[in-house]
Amino acid sequence: MLLCDIGNTSYHFLEDGIEYKKDAQTFDPSTIKEEVHYICVNTKIKLILKDLENWIDLSGHLDMSKYYETMGVDRMVASEAIKNGIIIDAGSAVTVDIVKDGLFQGGFIYPGLNAMSQTYKNISSALDYPFNFDIDLNKFPKNSTDAITYGYLKTLYAEVTSHNMNIILTGGDAKEFAKIFPDAKVNESLIFKGMKKLLQNR
Amino acid sequence: MLLCDIGNTSYHFLEDGIEYKKDAQTFDPSTIKEEVHYICVNTKIKLILKDLENWIDLSGHLDMSKYYETMGVDRMVASEAIKNGIIIDAGSAVTVDIVKDGLFQGGFIYPGLNAMSQTYKNISSALDYPFNFDIDLNKFPKNSTDAITYGYLKTLYAEVTSHNMNIILTGGDAKEFAKIFPDAKVNESLIFKGMKKLLQNR
Repeated sequence: MLLCDIGNTSYHFLEDGIEYKKDAQTFDPSTIKEEVHYICVNTKIKLILKDLENWIDLSGHLDMSKYYETMGVDRMVASEAIKNGIIIDAGSAVTVDIVKDGLFQGGFIYPGLNAMSQTYKNISSALDYPFNFDIDLNKFPKNSTDAITYGYLKTLYAEVTSHNMNIILTGGDAKEFAKIFPDAKVNESLIFKGMKKLLQNR
Repeated sequence: MLLCDIGNTSYHFLEDGIEYKKDAQTFDPSTIKEEVHYICVNTKIKLILKDLENWIDLSGHLDMSKYYETMGVDRMVASEAIKNGIIIDAGSAVTVDIVKDGLFQGGFIYPGLNAMSQTYKNISSALDYPFNFDIDLNKFPKNSTDAITYGYLKTLYAEVTSHNMNIILTGGDAKEFAKIFPDAKVNESLIFKGMKKLLQNR
């Protein structure tokens, strides 16, 4: 069985327990001849896949009434994968979603690592520093690197931990974020878990 | 007495209790002939003012050992204005600084309103929404506008309020932010208060 989660920057495949990625800009999906079950938030690629018979959109199996109209389908599928907890999906955006007793409670969107780094740089060249993921978030910063790192990450940390729920980290930057959320569980295959559940429930 | 706080986008003057602004790009400081006491974070303008005898840089009166080297002088001067509290200066960047018993404890930097709005838009056109300052931050969002607003503002709110200190709001977007921080005191002249204190202590 071949599963694929398509985002703004890449195709993320799972085949027989092995994950791999292809660039969203350059990969030609018609080169795959076997059946692929996919979800896709990339509007451009969505149009291409509609014409490929072996690419099967799994989003049709979602109970949309549990979510909201403009919500990304990847967030819905990740939410299907857990019973209780707060999911941080750290990609080009960081999405944070709460699930209680299997029901989506709402969620918010925060800028991803690269986007936020660019933001500080654009405000002023005086804020052009890399983030320090080894920062001690219990200390109020007294240098520029920590001042922007704390601004980006302690704010997120304060909000997420205020809910006192299990935290599940997924997405391309999950391992970096795990340094900031030491009690979180990292599960980079959370979306595939949700996709498999949708397939079983058909 | 003429005071001037110069930022990345404007000259902010205080003259006999009246405040006014001039555009940083177009205003010619040599048109002012009287004595001006100023602080300036704009490196370009700093160079111009060095050659104007009636423009007097107040930053020389700061005890720099209380702060850190790359810290903006406007943050230092605002910190001089209070004894105890947490200052949110909402401008092109949002700076958050803590003062206890007249001593700077550290601070962090968060993107300003325009910068953050641009950030979401740059990540995806699906996130191109204006922020909703009338949001109820006690509810977990179920629509896109609130999802990005909550991401921008609830995170900041959660961190700032975790310190249980008086909050003082200043800067160009102070009034907008006051909707999110209803218990904060708005003081748009905080920097001028700090500048006056530095002048008295000479």
